[in-house]
Amino acid sequence: MSKTHSAATGQPFTWTVRVYYEDTDTGGIVYYANYLKFFERARTEWLRAAGFEQHRLREEFGLQFVVAHIECSYQQPARLDDLIEIDLRVARTGRVFIVFEQSARRGAEVLATARVKAACIDARRFAPAAMPADMTAAFRTLPGFSPTP
Amino acid sequence: MSKTHSAATGQPFTWTVRVYYEDTDTGGIVYYANYLKFFERARTEWLRAAGFEQHRLREEFGLQFVVAHIECSYQQPARLDDLIEIDLRVARTGRVFIVFEQSARRGAEVLATARVKAACIDARRFAPAAMPADMTAAFRTLPGFSPTP
Amino acid sequence: MSKTHSAATGQPFTWTVRVYYEDTDTGGIVYYANYLKFFERARTEWLRAAGFEQHRLREEFGLQFVVAHIECSYQQPARLDDLIEIDLRVARTGRVFIVFEQSARRGAEVLATARVKAACIDARRFAPAAMPADMTAAFRTLPGFSPTP
Amino acid sequence: MSKTHSAATGQPFTWTVRVYYEDTDTGGIVYYANYLKFFERARTEWLRAAGFEQHRLREEFGLQFVVAHIECSYQQPARLDDLIEIDLRVARTGRVFIVFEQSARRGAEVLATARVKAACIDARRFAPAAMPADMTAAFRTLPGFSPTP
Repeated sequence: MSKTHSAATGQPFTWTVRVYYEDTDTGGIVYYANYLKFFERARTEWLRAAGFEQHRLREEFGLQFVVAHIECSYQQPARLDDLIEIDLRVARTGRVFIVFEQSARRGAEVLATARVKAACIDARRFAPAAMPADMTAAFRTLPGFSPTP
Repeated sequence: MSKTHSAATGQPFTWTVRVYYEDTDTGGIVYYANYLKFFERARTEWLRAAGFEQHRLREEFGLQFVVAHIECSYQQPARLDDLIEIDLRVARTGRVFIVFEQSARRGAEVLATARVKAACIDARRFAPAAMPADMTAAFRTLPGFSPTP
Repeated sequence: MSKTHSAATGQPFTWTVRVYYEDTDTGGIVYYANYLKFFERARTEWLRAAGFEQHRLREEFGLQFVVAHIECSYQQPARLDDLIEIDLRVARTGRVFIVFEQSARRGAEVLATARVKAACIDARRFAPAAMPADMTAAFRTLPGFSPTP
Repeated sequence: MSKTHSAATGQPFTWTVRVYYEDTDTGGIVYYANYLKFFERARTEWLRAAGFEQHRLREEFGLQFVVAHIECSYQQPARLDDLIEIDLRVARTGRVFIVFEQSARRGAEVLATARVKAACIDARRFAPAAMPADMTAAFRTLPGFSPTP
């Protein structure tokens, strides 16, 4: 994830995760796919902080987020019992998508960074659908929101 | 899983699984919850051999299997790259449930054994529902089927 | 898990987990194997509260816990966004094992119960090994500890 | 994954995976992180076809592969019971890394594509290490090998 892609500034939204046995592999480190779980937990908590739990999004609005694209760079391994902070910034938003910049840190040490494009879809038709205006308005009030102009 | 519980005899249904990084943990062995994935793959393949893929079960009949109870005994660890055979026998069937006896073997060496009670439910109401007669009839033709009289 | 098996009394140790997309399956509920992850997180946190992080256990003492046996009963489904409390009690301890009684609750509603026998092993030889005296002493000071006399 | 990045041609190496309950989420589709498991299974089988099982790589050579970077594009959802073919091509190799281009197909329909940079490391020091000459020589004989000149 090159620096030039990122215009996200300001305070990120941060969510802390603990590394359990379930997250590790026989290489003694966190399995690479499991960072995507950690990153999603942070996005989910950010949405929840905006008042939009995903089951509500589905039941009330018939909407669902799906990841359309991810780019992830692994820099340092995480290990059992580590306490990891997942930072989230919104880099861009559109009518039907949000681009997040996320990183996994152990203290000041960056373990992995990711750029994630999540698309809002109609849960039945599985086609792009506009995010509710209430939701995008709520985003603006959260830490981590700083899309490029 | 005590021997006295088991009246299952005859040839089991067998499904082979490979151990990948995703299945292991930092202890160098297959993570204990992942055996439940292996056991379910074998039950799914046994159902498929009977002509009942689970998405069809859901769409055509509005039915779904859920595990109501499992007892699992871990005897020897499995490791990365192991090729594991999952044996399945039907120990009992009722109108709304099946009890499976399963084991995980590496060659002749038993790694784990399980007794699993799967209940057939109405997928919407989440309440017990009778298995289709076609399905229980199909079961009788499969290896692994030998319920107590 | 029958009541007659349980002599555990007193205040349990409780650990809260959130249900994310990663935990659910296409049946709309938490996948059955994932309760074993939840149960282990609670055991890990109970050990941590006793001062024994598992990576320390491994590096300092050459020890590791493995699950030897689990019995789990699934009663009600958990769903996306649920906040679940995992209760833990110690039902029995031996020189080389601990038996836990655990349950998963959503408020007052019990979703699943489990009885888990965890064995202490030498991490290299993969053979039973006595738990350090310091550790078993620390156990006695924690909520959830109430083994049968 | 832009077309301009790809110089991989010729017959890919292909590995087939089945979608089980464990792979899906409550959205009714395969959970996004689980494609990374599928992609890794194909890489592991490609390595195995070259005669290099990963536990052997570790025990004999003290080496391990870790993913340094992944870019993944999700195009169509996969669902329960789907049979998915994972194609693998080697786009580039270096002394200490391999870049794979992978895709997940259901028949002719592409579900996801990925570009994965895997680094060879010394398993103890966790530092880059050259791949054994035997291994890179074996790669050349496999389907899927067609690095840019």
